[in-house]
Formats: sequence, structure tokens, C-alpha cells
Amino acid sequence: MLLPIKGIRLSSVSAGIKKNQNKDLVLIELADSSSCAAVFTKNKFCAAPVTLAKQHLAVAIPRYLLINSGNANAGTGKQGMSDAVSTCELVAKQSGCDVQQVLPFSTGVIGENLPVDKIANAVPEIFNQLVDNNWISAAHGIMTTDTKLKGISRQFDLQGKTVTITGLSKGAGMIQPNMATMLAYVGTDAAVDQDLLQECLHDAVSLSFNSITVDSDTSTNDACVLMATGKAGNSKIVDKNEDYLQLFNAVSEVCLYLAQAIIRDAEGATKFVTLQVGSSKSIKDARQVAYTVAHSPLVKTALFASDPNWGRILAAVGRAGVDFDIDKIKIYLGDVCIVSNGGRDPAYSEEQGQAIMNKEEILIRIELNTGEYKASVWTSDLSYDYVKINAEYRS
Amino acid sequence: MLLPIKGIRLSSVSAGIKKNQNKDLVLIELADSSSCAAVFTKNKFCAAPVTLAKQHLAVAIPRYLLINSGNANAGTGKQGMSDAVSTCELVAKQSGCDVQQVLPFSTGVIGENLPVDKIANAVPEIFNQLVDNNWISAAHGIMTTDTKLKGISRQFDLQGKTVTITGLSKGAGMIQPNMATMLAYVGTDAAVDQDLLQECLHDAVSLSFNSITVDSDTSTNDACVLMATGKAGNSKIVDKNEDYLQLFNAVSEVCLYLAQAIIRDAEGATKFVTLQVGSSKSIKDARQVAYTVAHSPLVKTALFASDPNWGRILAAVGRAGVDFDIDKIKIYLGDVCIVSNGGRDPAYSEEQGQAIMNKEEILIRIELNTGEYKASVWTSDLSYDYVKINAEYRS
Repeated sequence: MLLPIKGIRLSSVSAGIKKNQNKDLVLIELADSSSCAAVFTKNKFCAAPVTLAKQHLAVAIPRYLLINSGNANAGTGKQGMSDAVSTCELVAKQSGCDVQQVLPFSTGVIGENLPVDKIANAVPEIFNQLVDNNWISAAHGIMTTDTKLKGISRQFDLQGKTVTITGLSKGAGMIQPNMATMLAYVGTDAAVDQDLLQECLHDAVSLSFNSITVDSDTSTNDACVLMATGKAGNSKIVDKNEDYLQLFNAVSEVCLYLAQAIIRDAEGATKFVTLQVGSSKSIKDARQVAYTVAHSPLVKTALFASDPNWGRILAAVGRAGVDFDIDKIKIYLGDVCIVSNGGRDPAYSEEQGQAIMNKEEILIRIELNTGEYKASVWTSDLSYDYVKINAEYRS
Repeated sequence: MLLPIKGIRLSSVSAGIKKNQNKDLVLIELADSSSCAAVFTKNKFCAAPVTLAKQHLAVAIPRYLLINSGNANAGTGKQGMSDAVSTCELVAKQSGCDVQQVLPFSTGVIGENLPVDKIANAVPEIFNQLVDNNWISAAHGIMTTDTKLKGISRQFDLQGKTVTITGLSKGAGMIQPNMATMLAYVGTDAAVDQDLLQECLHDAVSLSFNSITVDSDTSTNDACVLMATGKAGNSKIVDKNEDYLQLFNAVSEVCLYLAQAIIRDAEGATKFVTLQVGSSKSIKDARQVAYTVAHSPLVKTALFASDPNWGRILAAVGRAGVDFDIDKIKIYLGDVCIVSNGGRDPAYSEEQGQAIMNKEEILIRIELNTGEYKASVWTSDLSYDYVKINAEYRS
């Protein structure tokens, strides 16, 4: 059940961009005087719509988000930029807003030109179908290789008013350059200052969407948008006070749910794996160790095999490029200590490790004992199906 | 055909460390007054024999290298160090040399104690069998999951004397923590100053063993040793002169052959892939781009599928964290330009890409157009068999 957000209307149609008849074009309408924050991929080869969306955000508050699936409009050079501009112009003309008030997003095949004519044909209908109770339909419209719809709603009380947050995401690998990538749209009816909203999104994303990995690849099209319509009736949040903290916690929770939903739906995944690195001298160190283990193909294949092959975890930690004392570090599988004093913990038994590895949700915890910081990263295993999906995709 | 090196004798026996009856213990004897250089893994969890070999090298020129396969003596804590010392003592006692003149090496299962008694039983026989024409037998003795023997000899003329270089390597993943890892032993009869020999090895390794990757993992036991006996009759190389350059080129050639042999025998590999990054503003940038593409699971699965999925290469280059102008970069598959002006090259056709991808040896060349440096990295593809080998290894 995805709750509507006052001030946001959505619609989703089949414009014929995808080869099947699935929905592939989504329009999100944002009430006037809303705030809107966004973060984008850092890939140098970012897609044309990413470049254009950043330009538009710099000069205007958006009224419309136009998202197509089935074509990423990436690796398309000057034509790609011209096509992205054209789609924004279509929406501006239909609605009467400025072209800079339209943000374009694309996800799908890389390197093929966007079928602007198909989008043009669908624009009148997509405006006709705008309603507020349409988040599930929008979630369907942005899916590519996703096998599961990803959405969540949360409510909390703010100054005696009920604030609602609803979010969507798509993605099944951090990147699939043919069916690129991770998109997420989160709306709330809270009233929030524009700069604070951007800070809120940035911090929430670093703990959620930027703390997951399927295969270490970063797409050309990644984007996450946080929209705040101000219709809940709270007095606008303009300081980092208790109200901000409540909002931040709720947004973080929604983002974390949506990010973890991507890992649960990761290509070929059979395991949901949490890496927790604690007692680190910096968050950077903790993240580096967590990501090194999370990216290790040998750790990931051992997870797929439900093999408590602790030597692979130890070896990945050892090559993370982070300073620690091997005699003081401890590594746990679930609650069981597997490594202490530079080797296998004396009390560890293979049976204990096997029992944990047999589960679908696995926690790997590493205590560096170099300081007081910590970080978590979520990942999946590396299975035959990952290879199958990514080797056979275009065949 | 592996040529003997004057001043080096080798032997190889089955000590019963491996469960099958294959050879698993190798002794290399080095003439008095030789030079010897070595480089080791940078993994913090390096194995006990790595730590001990470094200590011994710091105080003495080695006379003996004792190498066992079937057990890595890694993740074994204090007992592991004590066991490594014991094996050196066995060799010192049998030969009459100092214990510091013995270097220990281990490769095989992580986390199990070294069976020192089995090694002790085999020591008399392994000394009895020392002969100079035994490099192939030694290459067999250090193999673990390798499917092919890896060795090469080269000769060149130096000051009118024939200098011979013979080298061995083992390894089929950069790491297999259960059957760890890459070992390489290179001998020459050239006379070379100890410090220059170390520099020669360091530079040759950075262009060979440190320019390959199967799965981005670095083992606990990696080691490469270069031995120079001084029996060729050349006057000792003590400067970086023309003689040094000749030696360096020959050692580099041997190391590159041995490193590439590991990639050709990589776990599950069906492709041998060369990443060349040119016109870079630094070697560091060039290596970073090359490794990012080489490590990308999506590029590696596309290579396995013989799929000219150029978008994946473009996306990996874009996330490498290196500065360049996307309109100036060019990416080639073999001789065919696939990316220019920020997108698919106008002259590129899928048929051209397919023809190159169908081959077993594939060149991916990236011109950054930011400077005048270049680097090469060699890798393999990511296949079902990689997952199978690493998921089922301990089953």
C-alpha cells in the first residue's frame, strides 16, 4: 500500500519504447512552491538526461518529472542531449510551465537514440491520467529487469500534523548499462527549505543508496529525487532542529528500505548480506573494508555456495588497504567469532559457520579495534544466474 | 624445455601434504655468493612464511628456498610462525647453513596447521635428489589448482657470455585463499649486485605480475623471487648501464610470460584480454582505468558471452574516478573504434564488434587524450566455471 502525497500526482502509460507492451513512461507532477532535491551518478559518461536535469535544477524548482524506461539515452552524444531537451519541451508545451521546470530521466538500453516521436504521441494521454493515488502504477512504469516492485510509505507526527513519505525505486544491479539503472523518487508533504532538503537527501543517500553494491559497477543514469510539497501543514523546516531530525530519520528509513529492496532483487541473488565494520578510526576506513569484502568475487561465490570459507573474508579484509593490527581485529559470522589473534578463533567450529551460512540473510561483522566509527554496506552473492543474466542479456 | 641455471639445483618430492600423491615439496639450492631479490604480497593477513622470509632476507643471502604446496600456513597465528621456523631449521640442520639462509614458502589451504612432521620426513630425500636439470619437476611441485605447467627460459648475450634465465610460476586466480596463490621463482646465472637485482625485480614485477587480475583479490601468500648466481662469467652488473638494461628486458620478458600464463590458466577463463590505456596524464590514471574495466563483472560477463556490449566498457571507464573529457576519449575493440565524441562511433557496426569478440584473445584500447603515459593490464572473463570452481571448491 503506497500512500498518496498531497501535492503530487502521477501517471504511467505504455508509449511503445519497451518492446513488450509494458508501461514505460511516467510523469510526476509537483505542486507549485514545492522543494525538490536530487543526487545523480558520478559516472563521467553520465547520460544526457542526467546532465540536463542538473542544469534545470540549478535554475528552477521542477513542476514535472518525465521518466522513461526501455531506453537510457546514454552514450548518445549530441543527439542524446537534443532529444532530452525535446522531451522537456513537450511537457512544458502541454502544461504551460517553463522548460527548465521539467526534469528528464531515462533508464534502459545504452547507445540507442531516444524515440522522441513515441514520447510525443503519449504526452497528451499521460497528462490526462494524472492522479494522486498512482504510485504503484508509477513504480511499474520505471521497472526494467526488476522482478519485484519496490515502494514504501511511512507516516510520522510533526507539530501535531501527520506527515507522509512515499518512495519508489528500481534497479537490480548497481548498473546494467543496457538497462541502466537505479532510479528512486521519494515524495513527502512536509514543508522543508530547499537547501535543507538537499542536505537531508545527501545524508540519507550516503547511508542507503550509496551503501549498497551488487557488482561494484556505477551506472550512467543513477538518480534519486526527494520532493517536498509543503501540503502537510507543518510550519516550514528551516533549521536543523528536532523537526528536521524527525524528517531526516523518516527519509533515511524510506531510502534504506528502497536501497535494500534493490539488493533483495539483485541479479541472480540468493543471499542478502550485511557487512558491518565497527571500532574503526574513520567512517572512510570502515566503508573501505566493508566494500572490499562486499566486492570480493571469492567471498561472493562462497556466500552463494553457503560455504563458511572464512579465509576468503580474512584475505579480503587484509587487502583493503586499511591500517590495523592483525592480532586485535575480530571477524564475526552472525554472532560467531571466526577470526581472532591473527587466525581462526579457537572456539570456532565449522558447524557453527555452516549453520549461519545456510541462512538467506547473513551478517558479516568486522571489528577493526582502531577507533570508534562504524559503517554498514549491503550486498548480494555471486551466482550462476548473475553470470547467466549478464552474459545472455543481449543474446 | 626449461634450461638449467649454473649455480641452482632443484628437487621435488611428494611429502604427503596434498591428499593425492602429487609432488608437494620443492627445494631450491642457490650457490654461495649469489644475489637474491624478492617481492611479497601486501595483504595485512600475510602468511607466516611470508613474514619469516622477509625477516631472513633482511639479514642474510639465502642458500635454500623450501616451498610446499597443499597448505598455505596462513591464518594460523603463533603456531603458524613456529611451524615456519621449524621447517627452516630442518633445512639448516641438513645442509649446515644458517637458519636465516633458508626462505620458506607455502601455498594451499588456509587456516590449517602445517604438517611439519611430514616435511621433516621428506627432508633427507629432497636433499638427495637435488640436480640442476629439474625445473619442470619443481614447477609441478608448486602447482595447486593450476591446470597447466608454467615455465620459460630465455638466453641473451652479455659481454660475449651467454646468460640464461629460467622462471616458474603457479596460480590460477590472483587468490584462492584455500589454495593460495601466486608464486614465481626466476633464476639467472648473471652476476648482479644485490640492490640492483631488487630494483630489477621490483620494476619487472610492476609491469607483469602486478599488471594482471583475475578477480581483484590479492592473496595472503603471493611471492616472487629472482635469484642470480653469477656463474655466467660476466663482470658483475653494478650500475644501471646497457648491461643492466639487457638483463632487465630479459627478466621483464620472463616475468610477463609467467604472469600471462597465469591469466591463460585463470579459473574458468575462456578469454585472454589485454587492456591498453594510452595518452594518459599519468601511469596511475592509466592503470586505474585499465583495472576498473578489468574488474568490472559486467564487462567480464560480456566478454564471456562474446557480446560486443560496448556500453559496459564506456560505463566502467566513466566510473574509474579519472579526469578526462568525454568528447575526446576514444575506445577501441581491437582496431575498431567503438566510442568517440561521447557516444558510439558513427562508423562502428555491431558486426565489426562481434567479429572481434568471437576471438579468444581480445584487445580493449582506451585513449584518454590527457597526456603521454600508458599502461597495460591483462585479465580473463567471468564465466559459469569461475563461479563453479569457487563455489564448489570446498564441497
